[in-house]
Amino acid sequence: MKIIIIGAAGTIGKKVTAALEKDHEIVRVGSKSGDIQADITSPASIENLFKKAGPFDALISTAGDAHFGPLKTMTDKDFRKGIDSKLMGQINLVLVGQHYIRPGGSFTLTAGSVADDPIPLAASLSAINGALESFGLAAALELENGVRINVVSPGVVEDSPGYFPFFPGYTPIPMDEVVNAYIRSVLGARTGQVIKVSQE
Amino acid sequence: MKIIIIGAAGTIGKKVTAALEKDHEIVRVGSKSGDIQADITSPASIENLFKKAGPFDALISTAGDAHFGPLKTMTDKDFRKGIDSKLMGQINLVLVGQHYIRPGGSFTLTAGSVADDPIPLAASLSAINGALESFGLAAALELENGVRINVVSPGVVEDSPGYFPFFPGYTPIPMDEVVNAYIRSVLGARTGQVIKVSQE
Repeated sequence: MKIIIIGAAGTIGKKVTAALEKDHEIVRVGSKSGDIQADITSPASIENLFKKAGPFDALISTAGDAHFGPLKTMTDKDFRKGIDSKLMGQINLVLVGQHYIRPGGSFTLTAGSVADDPIPLAASLSAINGALESFGLAAALELENGVRINVVSPGVVEDSPGYFPFFPGYTPIPMDEVVNAYIRSVLGARTGQVIKVSQE
Repeated sequence: MKIIIIGAAGTIGKKVTAALEKDHEIVRVGSKSGDIQADITSPASIENLFKKAGPFDALISTAGDAHFGPLKTMTDKDFRKGIDSKLMGQINLVLVGQHYIRPGGSFTLTAGSVADDPIPLAASLSAINGALESFGLAAALELENGVRINVVSPGVVEDSPGYFPFFPGYTPIPMDEVVNAYIRSVLGARTGQVIKVSQE
């Protein structure tokens, strides 16, 4: 299977890559590293990515930034960092990628547990993750030729200790469980599902 | 109570206005009608709205457009119609309005049932509604001085027959039930809730 991994050098992406590269052809994509460089905030860069990568069987996105900070001082500009990157970046991977993916292929995007279980400082991220979860449900109804889509929604993972102070009382999620969620999406048959990997 | 209603001339907004105007001071806001005109796609126009309206006790938004059409031909530009209007328009009403609302006041935004129960052609609207629902949960954790926020999420309403063909098998929701959801949000004590007014 030929699998494009967006954010292949990231905290989650590198572990997902390591788990899949033994048995599959991986196209590593990063903003500054990997087999192909792409800026997911640019639809033109995404189009160029798919032209370079050629037909593929699965796309996994573990990429995208968003603003993290107090609601009290949050601005439209702050909010749009995540809109342009984590939200529209991943959605444009599907809007453009649907025209390049092979029949029976799959898209797997990444949201996060604050969509449903919010914490202070993450209002922007909650909105973006909620949007991604709902987009996955809806897009599954319309993708053609047996193409599937799922959204992995992890809690705070053990490999991101910098976030632990913002999640008091949460047991960090083992990375193996998060990686397995992506594998269930890509190698399984499900579609239109939010695959939650969190405590609630 | 002084209540700002954004979209006061719209299908839902005019019924919400009619239900509240007997007992409350209503500031009607529309893009082209009402006591104050505002373009919610512009943060500057929103700031101007609050300066004109003065301190208030509740804001109800029933405003915002989004793209409705097939995923297969959907573009970034299509998607951003709803991002700029229904999503960031309503979120900016809160980001800016939190600095003008009176202590103990409330924000009530409008999402929609396709966030959780999608239909074909509504992938963009699903994402935007999902974002609004999650934003409401998260913003409630951070709003200060007892300010509350809830999100009303209606299904297809009886006053919008143009949408009935897209919701086969759904009984249109009586407008009284939708109006009551806004009243429960504004006059009740709840916060951080998605008030669903739909069949599922």
